[in-house]
Amino acid sequence: MNGKRMGMATIRLERPPRVRAWAAVGGKKEKDGPLGAEFDHVFSDTMCGEKTWEQAEVHLQKVAVGMAANKCKLPVSALDMILAGDLLGQCVASSYAARGTQVPYLGLYGACSTMAESLAIGACMVDGGFAQRVCAVASSHFCTAERQYRFPLAYGGQRTPTAQWTATAAGACILTAAADDCAPVRITHVCFGKVCDLGITDANNMGAAMAPAAYDTLRTLFSDTGTYPEDYDGIFTGDLGQVGSRLLCELFSRDHIDISPVHDDCGKLLFDSKQDVHAGGSGCGCAASVLCAHLLPRLADGRMKRMILAATGALMSPTSVQQGESIPAVCHAVVLESGGKR
Amino acid sequence: MNGKRMGMATIRLERPPRVRAWAAVGGKKEKDGPLGAEFDHVFSDTMCGEKTWEQAEVHLQKVAVGMAANKCKLPVSALDMILAGDLLGQCVASSYAARGTQVPYLGLYGACSTMAESLAIGACMVDGGFAQRVCAVASSHFCTAERQYRFPLAYGGQRTPTAQWTATAAGACILTAAADDCAPVRITHVCFGKVCDLGITDANNMGAAMAPAAYDTLRTLFSDTGTYPEDYDGIFTGDLGQVGSRLLCELFSRDHIDISPVHDDCGKLLFDSKQDVHAGGSGCGCAASVLCAHLLPRLADGRMKRMILAATGALMSPTSVQQGESIPAVCHAVVLESGGKR
Repeated sequence: MNGKRMGMATIRLERPPRVRAWAAVGGKKEKDGPLGAEFDHVFSDTMCGEKTWEQAEVHLQKVAVGMAANKCKLPVSALDMILAGDLLGQCVASSYAARGTQVPYLGLYGACSTMAESLAIGACMVDGGFAQRVCAVASSHFCTAERQYRFPLAYGGQRTPTAQWTATAAGACILTAAADDCAPVRITHVCFGKVCDLGITDANNMGAAMAPAAYDTLRTLFSDTGTYPEDYDGIFTGDLGQVGSRLLCELFSRDHIDISPVHDDCGKLLFDSKQDVHAGGSGCGCAASVLCAHLLPRLADGRMKRMILAATGALMSPTSVQQGESIPAVCHAVVLESGGKR
Repeated sequence: MNGKRMGMATIRLERPPRVRAWAAVGGKKEKDGPLGAEFDHVFSDTMCGEKTWEQAEVHLQKVAVGMAANKCKLPVSALDMILAGDLLGQCVASSYAARGTQVPYLGLYGACSTMAESLAIGACMVDGGFAQRVCAVASSHFCTAERQYRFPLAYGGQRTPTAQWTATAAGACILTAAADDCAPVRITHVCFGKVCDLGITDANNMGAAMAPAAYDTLRTLFSDTGTYPEDYDGIFTGDLGQVGSRLLCELFSRDHIDISPVHDDCGKLLFDSKQDVHAGGSGCGCAASVLCAHLLPRLADGRMKRMILAATGALMSPTSVQQGESIPAVCHAVVLESGGKR
């Protein structure tokens, strides 16, 4: 061990990997939301020109990866690794998107925490010298997720007030080695989370299931690094939504810590409350696309100096919910800083 | 880049992480197979004392992780990371098994290649100094897999001759840093595979879908390291079964390379042909348990000096198969050597 591991779980990256380029791709609802103009590309058609919703989600990932690589003036085939995940059974959006790339593929499953998991593992791979250029990508699609987790869309089921709206979106980041002076953002710390389960069984209240995981990982990160919320320009959970965000602030307030001045949530940022999304956005593509459309540009141009992406995932399946299991959750965090040259 | 990356994709581990301990847990059919006596624990009851098959698979993972940690005289909570995966939608066997461990959890999906993926990422984490003690684990369960991928068991569907039998098993390895002189096995190289798809659409012929991926990764590993099949005491694919193994040998024979003297397959080793398993065993738990029950002990006592585990995964889902998609596959490889002290 060479001092990279701090405290309970946080990893300090000695030669902070750079985020060289990124791309966010979304659907029509994402375009109509507050961040719409910040996406690199939006599709007005739910099918994205494909024959099935699942193929559409594959397309979202492919476009995001292709655009991010293109910004580095690299063909996708020049990447050393793709680290990818999504919400579907057997992560098919990611596997089918990686098909044909000729790039080593690491399939991940962290539900809506996937973008942070892929960034964190990718950053370790680069810092450790195991790869020079990796792509971290995650996606979700409202229609594939509804089919996977809930009801046929044509059934027109009512959504509860605590329900969240799965983003139709993908975000991809290209990570490069510390020596890359052209990259405007770097990853300084990562923290892999533990599985937390406080007994929530309502699959339409994922914010409540995930808030304890976000609290646990952020508290660990603060403690391991000796930092406080005010040391960051922003702490972005993804995607607790309205309900989970309130619970997270409440959990911290019990420790006499007020994170509310710097906290926001990707699920709250992606959509406007007028868009009928109830408690906010969700899905692997939510944190991924908000990071790539909205947050990384602010680090790149110096509007933010240091932020945390703490993406949360609810780790249930339709089967586990039907069997009455409670919903375990996980939150992985990455600390991102402005400036590649420092 | 500091020379860890060799050739196209192979990673040389500079301070080869050790495999300190391992455990294999299985069901009744695995007990009755040729490796039955080598398992650390077998359950005669499909439910493993739980209420559902899914909970039974969770139990298999928990017992495997607990036994492996126990052999290191460590509580599970002393691990730095658990890297885990399984075949189920949203990887619930792994997530629920990690619940309550208080250990940072990295969820992976590589279908039947998962054990190699978890070993490979875990080895990078240890070699990079990001963790000191990690657990790589994978599981499958015949009944959960049939429910997930095929038909209700009570339906009694006929299985085709090329079909494989999902292992009810889990395997767990504890990886430690190179300085651990007590560990009998080390990981010297890892190779993450690309997604290969030659157009197979028959979900009952996974061996054929996966053979090209095994060929691609093994060929890359040989080329990157300048080694030949005869440089290894064994090359174990997991789980091509009878059909895929024949195809793999055929693919290599086109390059005038005969891997048959050293090649075997975890899916062929786990069961006897008299056990009505058709083309052989499969599932994340197949390669994981054959590695832990049968292969690691042979490295530990010197019966083998050097071997490759090249675990293959078919990356389709029930939805993608129903939509007529062909089956993409991936193969991740790890090179294991006898002797922690060298």
